[in-house]
Amino acid sequence: MSTSPFSNRFNRRDFLVGSARVAGAALVTGAAGQAFGAVRERLRIGMIGTGMRGQVHLRELLRRDDVDVVALCDVEPIMLDKALEKVAKAGKPVPRTYGADRDPDGWRAMLAAGGLDGVIIATPWEWHAPMAIEAMRAGVAVGCEVVAGITLQDHWDVLNTQLSTGTPYMLLENVCYRRDVLAVLRMVRAGVFGELAHLQGGYQHDLRGVKLNGGDPAHPYGGGVEFGPKGWSEARWRTEHSVRRDGDLYPSHGIGPCAMATNINRGNRFTRINSFSTAARGLHDYIVKQAPDHPNAKATFKLGDIVTTTLACANGETILLQHDTSLPRPYSLGFRVQGTKGLWMDVNHSIYVEGVSKPEQWDDFKQWQDKYDHPLWRRFGEDAAGAGHGGMDFFVMHAFLEALKNGEPMPIDIYDAVTWSAITPLSEQSVAQGFQTLDFPDFTNGACARASRGSRSTTATRRLPLFLPVRLPNC
Amino acid sequence: MSTSPFSNRFNRRDFLVGSARVAGAALVTGAAGQAFGAVRERLRIGMIGTGMRGQVHLRELLRRDDVDVVALCDVEPIMLDKALEKVAKAGKPVPRTYGADRDPDGWRAMLAAGGLDGVIIATPWEWHAPMAIEAMRAGVAVGCEVVAGITLQDHWDVLNTQLSTGTPYMLLENVCYRRDVLAVLRMVRAGVFGELAHLQGGYQHDLRGVKLNGGDPAHPYGGGVEFGPKGWSEARWRTEHSVRRDGDLYPSHGIGPCAMATNINRGNRFTRINSFSTAARGLHDYIVKQAPDHPNAKATFKLGDIVTTTLACANGETILLQHDTSLPRPYSLGFRVQGTKGLWMDVNHSIYVEGVSKPEQWDDFKQWQDKYDHPLWRRFGEDAAGAGHGGMDFFVMHAFLEALKNGEPMPIDIYDAVTWSAITPLSEQSVAQGFQTLDFPDFTNGACARASRGSRSTTATRRLPLFLPVRLPNC
Repeated sequence: MSTSPFSNRFNRRDFLVGSARVAGAALVTGAAGQAFGAVRERLRIGMIGTGMRGQVHLRELLRRDDVDVVALCDVEPIMLDKALEKVAKAGKPVPRTYGADRDPDGWRAMLAAGGLDGVIIATPWEWHAPMAIEAMRAGVAVGCEVVAGITLQDHWDVLNTQLSTGTPYMLLENVCYRRDVLAVLRMVRAGVFGELAHLQGGYQHDLRGVKLNGGDPAHPYGGGVEFGPKGWSEARWRTEHSVRRDGDLYPSHGIGPCAMATNINRGNRFTRINSFSTAARGLHDYIVKQAPDHPNAKATFKLGDIVTTTLACANGETILLQHDTSLPRPYSLGFRVQGTKGLWMDVNHSIYVEGVSKPEQWDDFKQWQDKYDHPLWRRFGEDAAGAGHGGMDFFVMHAFLEALKNGEPMPIDIYDAVTWSAITPLSEQSVAQGFQTLDFPDFTNGACARASRGSRSTTATRRLPLFLPVRLPNC
Repeated sequence: MSTSPFSNRFNRRDFLVGSARVAGAALVTGAAGQAFGAVRERLRIGMIGTGMRGQVHLRELLRRDDVDVVALCDVEPIMLDKALEKVAKAGKPVPRTYGADRDPDGWRAMLAAGGLDGVIIATPWEWHAPMAIEAMRAGVAVGCEVVAGITLQDHWDVLNTQLSTGTPYMLLENVCYRRDVLAVLRMVRAGVFGELAHLQGGYQHDLRGVKLNGGDPAHPYGGGVEFGPKGWSEARWRTEHSVRRDGDLYPSHGIGPCAMATNINRGNRFTRINSFSTAARGLHDYIVKQAPDHPNAKATFKLGDIVTTTLACANGETILLQHDTSLPRPYSLGFRVQGTKGLWMDVNHSIYVEGVSKPEQWDDFKQWQDKYDHPLWRRFGEDAAGAGHGGMDFFVMHAFLEALKNGEPMPIDIYDAVTWSAITPLSEQSVAQGFQTLDFPDFTNGACARASRGSRSTTATRRLPLFLPVRLPNC
C-alpha cells in the first residue's frame, strides 16, 4: 500500500512552478525542518482527538505500513486508553500521549514537541481552526475533519495561515470519495450530463440519538436525553451548536461533491448564498416524548429542523443544500446532478440521459455506476471494504497521506476547505437577517474565478484528473 | 352524477354568515341576475379557449348530465371547429360560438350576451386576469385555468374584483386532486406526519417539445423549432414567456398541494419568498441541435433552465418549489411532505413514519395510499379514469361545478388563486434583484393569518374537511 496510486502528473519542476503560483510559498521548509515538496516513504502522524470519529481514522492509520502513529492527544482518558488499546492490538509502537491529565493545552505540547509530519484533527468543531492554525505554524501538515472553523473570520484565519506558512492542509471530507459520487464526477467530466445546471446535496440524517444520549460511554447513541456536560461523545459538545445556532451547520458532505463537479475555485465560484430555516421542534419533541419531566424538556433549541440553502455559481449553476438532522427520517444526502443532457438522483438510485434512456423513463443507476466506476475503487475497493462509512474513510485518509508523501497538492485544499465550510456562518447570517441573500466571499481573491454567468463551464479545456481534480497550475 | 358528493357541511344560515365574514359580499345577485347562494340542478357553462387544454375540459363537461355547454369562444377556427365536432359527437345541442372570425373581442360579446352560470377560461396566461375580471363583473362564475394573472397588480385586481362582485371564482388547479396528493392531505389532517416542517413540490416537466414545434396543427408537440406566430398551440404564446421572463412561471401544481397541507390562508400564510435561477441553455441547445441554421438558433431566452424558489410560512414551515421545463428529464412534480413524525416523497414512491416504519428504512407508499385513499376517489375513480392527467381533470371540474350548483364556497378560492399564482411575479422580482428575498404580500389583509412563527399548526382545533378544506367561517 506504500505505492502511490496516483500517476505522477506533475514532474518535480512543474509542481514547484505550479504551486508557487498558488500561494507564493507552496514549497517551504516548515518549522519542523520538513520540506513539503519532498517525496517520503513513511509518515510520522499525530492525532488530536481520539473520540468516536478519531478512532475510525486511527484504525485506518494503523492498517497502513507507511504510517507511524507517533503521538495521540485527547482530554478524555477513556478514549485515549481505547486508542492505545487499538495501537497495541495492531502490534505497533506505543505513541506519546497528551491530555491524559485532561490538560486542555496538551495538543499545543504535542505540536511543540516536534517529530510530526502530519496531524489528524478530529476534535469538536470549535477547536478545528485554532488547532489547524497552530499546526501549520509548527510546519505540521493538517488533515482536518470537517468543518474548517466556526465564524467567517476563522475561515479567513485558517486560509491566511496556510498561505503564509505553505504547510499542506486538507479537509477530510469523505463523501467526495463515495463510490457513486466519484463515478458521477467521472460522468460529469466525460460530459454525460452536458453543461451542468443544478445540483443538490445535503445532510439529511436523524441525529437525535447523537445529539442526545444517556451520558454512558458504553452507549454513545440514544438511550437518554442528556447533552452538554452530562452527555457523552457528540452530545457533550455538538448539541450546543443546535442550542445556539440556526443555519446549515454541516454543509461539506453535500457541497463537497457538488463543488467538485462544478469546478468551484477551479474556474468557477459561489456568488450568492441564501438560507431558509424552519421552526425548531424535533429535538424538543424527542426529549418530551422520552422524559417529559427532565430539565432538558425545558431546553430551547435555535437550530431550525430543516435548513434550506441555495447557492448561485458564477458559471450559471445553482446548488441546493438541505440540512435536516433533528427529525425522524432515513439517512439520505439527497444528491442530484443535472445538466443540459440529463440528471442523476441518489434518492431513487436513478439516472436519465437524453438519447440513451427511454423517453420519460428513469434508468437504474447501477449499470452507469459499473461503467464509470472509479479506477481507485476498482483497485482499492477491497481495502476500503472494512473502513468507515462504506469505505469512504479509507479513501479520504489515503488521499491525504499519498499527497503528503508525494509532495503533491492536497486534493481537497485550503480553498475548498474554507469555501465549503464558510457556508455555515454565511447561512447563519442569512437566517438571522430574515432569510436574506448574501454575496459569497471570494477566498481566492479572483484568482480562480474568471468565468462569468452564462459562459460554458464544462466545455472549457482542462485536464481531466485521474482522482479528484487538483488545483491547476494556472489558477 | 348530478348528486353532490359533498356532505352538506354548511346549513344555509351558517353559509351565509360565514361567507359574509369573508368578503362582505359573498352572496350577491350578479349582473346576470343569478343568486350564487342558490342550489341549482343544472348549469349553463361557456368556454373561453378551446385549444388543447380547453378541449380536455370540454370533454369533461360533455360527459356530464348536469351541464349545458351553451357558448364557446376561440379565435382559432380550427380549434373552435374541433370543439363543435366534440359537442356534436356527444349528441348535445349546438352552442353559440364566438371568435370564429378571429375577433379578439369575441369573449366580451359572449359574456355580454348573458345566459351563463359559469365560464371556463383556458386561454393564454396573459388573458386570464382580464377575462376573469370581466366575467365576474358580468356575474358569471369563473373556473380559471392556472395562472390567475401575470403581474402582481393583476393578482390584486382579480382579488378585488371577486371581493367587490362576490362572483364565485375557482382556480382549476388539478394536481390538488391527484390521488396520492389527496391521500397525503388526509394523512396530514390525521396527524401522520406530526407537525409539518418542510414541503416540496414543483413543475419538473420537459416542455421543449411543447414550447417548440413545427407549427403544424396536426402535430402540436415537437417536430420543429418554431415558436411565436409560426408555432402552433402553446408554442405560439407560451414560449414568449421563456423569452421575456425569468422566475417560476408555473408554480400552482407544486404549491397547491403544499399550501393546502400547510393551511395557507386558513390560519397560516407565506411570509417570505426567494428565487434563484440558473443560466438559460436548454431551449437554445434544443434548437441548435435540430436546426443550427434556423433563425431561432439565434433567439435568446431569459428563463433560467431551473428556478429554485423557497417560501417561509408564518407557522414555521418552509416550502421549496422547483421549476424545470427546458431540460431533458422524466416528468416529476417532486413532492415531499415532512413533519415531526416522518415524511413522504413521491420521486421514490416512499414514506417513513416514526414508530411504524422500520428504522432507517423507507416504506413503499402503496399501502398508505390504499389506507388513506380519498372517499371521492373511491367513489368516482372509475368516472375519472378516462379524464385528463390521470383523472385529476375530472375532479377539479367536478369540484367547481358541484360548489357552483350547491352555492358552496369554492374549494380553491380567490385567496388561494392569487396567493399561489403571485409566486410568479414575486419570483421574477427576486431573480431580477440578484436572488434577493422579498416579503410576501398578505392578500387576506391579516384576516387568515394570525399564527406566528414557532406556533403549532396542525394541533389547532379545526374541522377536518371531507374534501379540500374550505375557508373556515371565522377567517
